[in-house]
Amino acid sequence: MASYKILLLPGDGIGPEVAHEAEKVLAWFGRAGLGTFETETDLVGGAAIDAHGVPLTEAALGLAKAADAVLFGAVGGPKWAGVPYAVRPEAGLLRLRKDLGLFANLRPAICYPALAAASSLKPELVEGLDLMIVRELTGGVYFGEPKEIVTLEDGQRRAVDTQIYTTGEIERIAAVAFDLARKRRNKVASAEKHNVMKSGVLWKDVVTRLHAEHYADVGLEHVLADNCAMQLVRNPKQYDVVVTDNLFGDILSDVAAMLTGSLGMLPSASLGAVENGTRRALYEPVHGSAPDIAGQNAANPLAMIGSLAMALRYSFGLSDAADRLDAAITRTLAGGTRTRDIAGTGVNAVGTGEMGDAIIREL
Amino acid sequence: MASYKILLLPGDGIGPEVAHEAEKVLAWFGRAGLGTFETETDLVGGAAIDAHGVPLTEAALGLAKAADAVLFGAVGGPKWAGVPYAVRPEAGLLRLRKDLGLFANLRPAICYPALAAASSLKPELVEGLDLMIVRELTGGVYFGEPKEIVTLEDGQRRAVDTQIYTTGEIERIAAVAFDLARKRRNKVASAEKHNVMKSGVLWKDVVTRLHAEHYADVGLEHVLADNCAMQLVRNPKQYDVVVTDNLFGDILSDVAAMLTGSLGMLPSASLGAVENGTRRALYEPVHGSAPDIAGQNAANPLAMIGSLAMALRYSFGLSDAADRLDAAITRTLAGGTRTRDIAGTGVNAVGTGEMGDAIIREL
Ligand SMILES: CC(C)[C@H](C(=O)O)[C@@H](O)C(=O)O
Ligand SMILES: CC(C)[C@H](C(=O)O)[C@@H](O)C(=O)O
Repeated sequence: MASYKILLLPGDGIGPEVAHEAEKVLAWFGRAGLGTFETETDLVGGAAIDAHGVPLTEAALGLAKAADAVLFGAVGGPKWAGVPYAVRPEAGLLRLRKDLGLFANLRPAICYPALAAASSLKPELVEGLDLMIVRELTGGVYFGEPKEIVTLEDGQRRAVDTQIYTTGEIERIAAVAFDLARKRRNKVASAEKHNVMKSGVLWKDVVTRLHAEHYADVGLEHVLADNCAMQLVRNPKQYDVVVTDNLFGDILSDVAAMLTGSLGMLPSASLGAVENGTRRALYEPVHGSAPDIAGQNAANPLAMIGSLAMALRYSFGLSDAADRLDAAITRTLAGGTRTRDIAGTGVNAVGTGEMGDAIIREL
Repeated sequence: MASYKILLLPGDGIGPEVAHEAEKVLAWFGRAGLGTFETETDLVGGAAIDAHGVPLTEAALGLAKAADAVLFGAVGGPKWAGVPYAVRPEAGLLRLRKDLGLFANLRPAICYPALAAASSLKPELVEGLDLMIVRELTGGVYFGEPKEIVTLEDGQRRAVDTQIYTTGEIERIAAVAFDLARKRRNKVASAEKHNVMKSGVLWKDVVTRLHAEHYADVGLEHVLADNCAMQLVRNPKQYDVVVTDNLFGDILSDVAAMLTGSLGMLPSASLGAVENGTRRALYEPVHGSAPDIAGQNAANPLAMIGSLAMALRYSFGLSDAADRLDAAITRTLAGGTRTRDIAGTGVNAVGTGEMGDAIIREL
């Protein structure tokens, strides 16, 4: 029986609560004989700042590098609003992405049939929605240098951020998008701002070439990022896979997630390059740390559990187990079990723990 | 009777058709004795490329500088997809913004009651929506240097764009937002990414200080740009004025516009600093050049006519006339007159010219 090493980084706010439910589900898969799942747990974000003064210790980074997959909860909260920029909670997550080389961020936006009514869009526009945002995650304005604030001679301050992309960075993320599209509805939309940004010019050019040379069988459309945001609101079902840079991906994936009405339900995967048949990977819910409801047994653990399903699929090659877990989520929802965020008025909500138990029962 | 100089830059696609209707309305205001409106017309965008090889001639720029207001249609289209980056149609618009110093872009997102059903959002979420996006328009990644593509020694290409903001640039756009809010519902949301961008750190800091020192009576909220995009989809009515940088403003204003269901209806104003009691200004519809329907008498001229209303208000100090024009638009819609884009199924649509005539009848 294969053995897998998993690092749990629950983080802040509701992170620990939802991570605990994923751990329960993982233990169930272990008992069911699907594999030996060795878990370790460490601190990240505000929790690590409180304990060690930094949002990610070298030791935790080492564990992440040694793991087959990292399950990440969420980081941040008002408690750490005042800490210096370099050691803010988010820096822990950004360092993990960069140092593990997790350049491909997969953010599915799925509208669960049972939740279509919860979307702010008209139900007919989101029912059956299943799109995948592929976001470049280790380049662009998030990491480019110079990135600084300087004080000028006249006393004014000037801030600079730098968006940088190279041919190779664009090629590898576009290849991920095309490969995914082939297993889906075979369509890619590539979003940039080539009309104002040189990185957009290069992006469009590299995607066009890669497509012509290796993926001519896949449908390809170029769309300006501002127009893409509009189109997501107007008619999201026109898209299958959307590939875009780090900053546009941050915004477009949040818009796509919100459309579904299932924000508390959406998982994500951040993947590195395949090396010797394996790839580094981190799985995390799209929602944040939600400090306002932390510790109240009110958080929805399904995004975290769905992230575990992605780990089973992409890191452990256990697609049957992943399908089974996804189906258990769908059935649990269809059966009417709801946490507070998706309960709607007049519906009795269950707690975080009960939702985890309900999934295990369905399994 | 006061006299006003107006430069018309109709541009490409449906630009000339909608600009023509605005000109008709302007002529009506002249006949009605509200002022002497002297208009000149010149080329911009693809039309200027075809005639002169550049998207904006020095002569046209000179006319724009000498005018009290510029009425701009739209630029671009597939015909000019292959022209070099430096002379692409959009460069004409960007040069106007930069050389006229039009740093403040006001993009109202209003849901016309008669059109609420056309939104992809549920009607109750957008009925009565009236928000104002204030976008910084002459700074940030649109204009920062370096902005280039270089070929590296290994043959790879690398693209760089640079986001730069100074204290002064942020202060003046924030002041515009706070001043506007005082005449509205007195709330400002400032959107940036201070958690990953140094320009976001400076932005948040400068807005916070300016607020404390000069606008403490206005409600202020800081929101991450990705979350702001989500919140616009979830519950747009929570916002009054949203102030943000050039690139985030590009995307957020498009999302806000699409929410209203009235995209073909939305005007915008781009304003410079007040100098000797006057300010340079350019007014343009939010929609683009729509080459697919150009020349068919099918375009909706109301965004362009609404942009003229903004010119009456912000450049000519004719707020009564502006109110009258806005009311004529609302009444025309309430009376059921529709161009194709807002007609819905089974409703007879009028052409661009008939819509212009209908507005003049209502006046
Ligand atoms: C927490 C923050 C740094 C992060 C980002 O901007 O990438 C978040 O918004 C996300 O999308 O994962
Ligand atoms: C045409 C283009 C350069 C422009 C921009 O990106 O600013 C447009 O999208 C806009 O929002 O006015």
